[in-house]
Amino acid sequence: MRVRNKPWAMDKLQSYPQYVLSSPEQYKGKWNEVFVKNQPLHIEIGTGKGRFITGMAKANPHINYIGIELNENVIVTALDLLIEENLPNLRLMNVNANDLGDIFEKGEVDQVYLNFSDPWPKTRHAKRRLTYKSFLKVYEGILKDRGEIHFKTDNQGLFEYSLMSFSEYGLLLKYVSLDLHNSDFEGNIMTEYEEKFSSKGSRIYRCEVQYR
Amino acid sequence: MRVRNKPWAMDKLQSYPQYVLSSPEQYKGKWNEVFVKNQPLHIEIGTGKGRFITGMAKANPHINYIGIELNENVIVTALDLLIEENLPNLRLMNVNANDLGDIFEKGEVDQVYLNFSDPWPKTRHAKRRLTYKSFLKVYEGILKDRGEIHFKTDNQGLFEYSLMSFSEYGLLLKYVSLDLHNSDFEGNIMTEYEEKFSSKGSRIYRCEVQYR
Repeated sequence: MRVRNKPWAMDKLQSYPQYVLSSPEQYKGKWNEVFVKNQPLHIEIGTGKGRFITGMAKANPHINYIGIELNENVIVTALDLLIEENLPNLRLMNVNANDLGDIFEKGEVDQVYLNFSDPWPKTRHAKRRLTYKSFLKVYEGILKDRGEIHFKTDNQGLFEYSLMSFSEYGLLLKYVSLDLHNSDFEGNIMTEYEEKFSSKGSRIYRCEVQYR
Repeated sequence: MRVRNKPWAMDKLQSYPQYVLSSPEQYKGKWNEVFVKNQPLHIEIGTGKGRFITGMAKANPHINYIGIELNENVIVTALDLLIEENLPNLRLMNVNANDLGDIFEKGEVDQVYLNFSDPWPKTRHAKRRLTYKSFLKVYEGILKDRGEIHFKTDNQGLFEYSLMSFSEYGLLLKYVSLDLHNSDFEGNIMTEYEEKFSSKGSRIYRCEVQYR
């Protein structure tokens, strides 16, 4: 996704520290104190404009959510949504997925969402894919035992790669749909990207994998 | 696949014992003596009319093949192909997949092919699917260590189920294609069914999994 550069984005993110957590390392081991309610924590890595995570937080008030997005030009849109909705169970973080081990203790996160991650189609860029083994290790380091990754994408190559990467890492494939929008899966909340591309006829692939 | 009943089928199979091995239990532990050449052995379970296994045997003379099919009304067509081609590295068996452990010693089979297996779409029939865990155990009991299953189907539900079943059993997903005929996979030999349904636009799914 190409996004217009917004020179004011970083300033805006910093103006809302109650929504966009700055220096999130300070909460490591204390995440149950950050939210109004001490309840399970789900994070989305690559939250983009925030439509999915905001929809999830509205639909599931018994779960806390954090949307994580490195690109400040995109996450400002998620911030606008959050300002509008003012959800007590949703926060944002403008950090790199590689650094999550500095931010969460092992077991503080109950579930990881990956939605329409950058496919990095060239083989030499495989290490950048969010389902590459080094990332699976990062997630393992913050998830509870038997924690899950829920992943969806319209990119066939990324989905194929990810199924193999999950298997090689030893994850259990608990659920897979090769055509999400024509399946009996209920409660799907679409991302901006998903709505756009599925309306053009793209298939959406989805799976749930569990550490074991 | 519905097939016309052929009352003469069983007689015909029995008339060609050099091609359709009768009482194959007698070869258990001695399969390297059955073929002209002692070389790797690949088996196809549910070989149907035999086009895939005949094509494989012609293309790979350095591998021995056995096509296994329970339905005598179908395997007679495979027999006709084999009579015509007279391939030294291909034999047929009219037996049940459940009985393979009585026919092969552990390690005598190098690879298992499953092509367009009956999907048995009803949940209560899941145990009949050739990728159900009890069958994976049968294959494990005859395959060499780190042996592989190569599986293709046009049935989305069966493929999804099978990916989960393989994962639960602990198999390694070495290769997966969610659209075989638009992939870079080389050397695909089509089954009768595959040619018919792919020409109508059905996607073909394929994977390779390995015991570990």
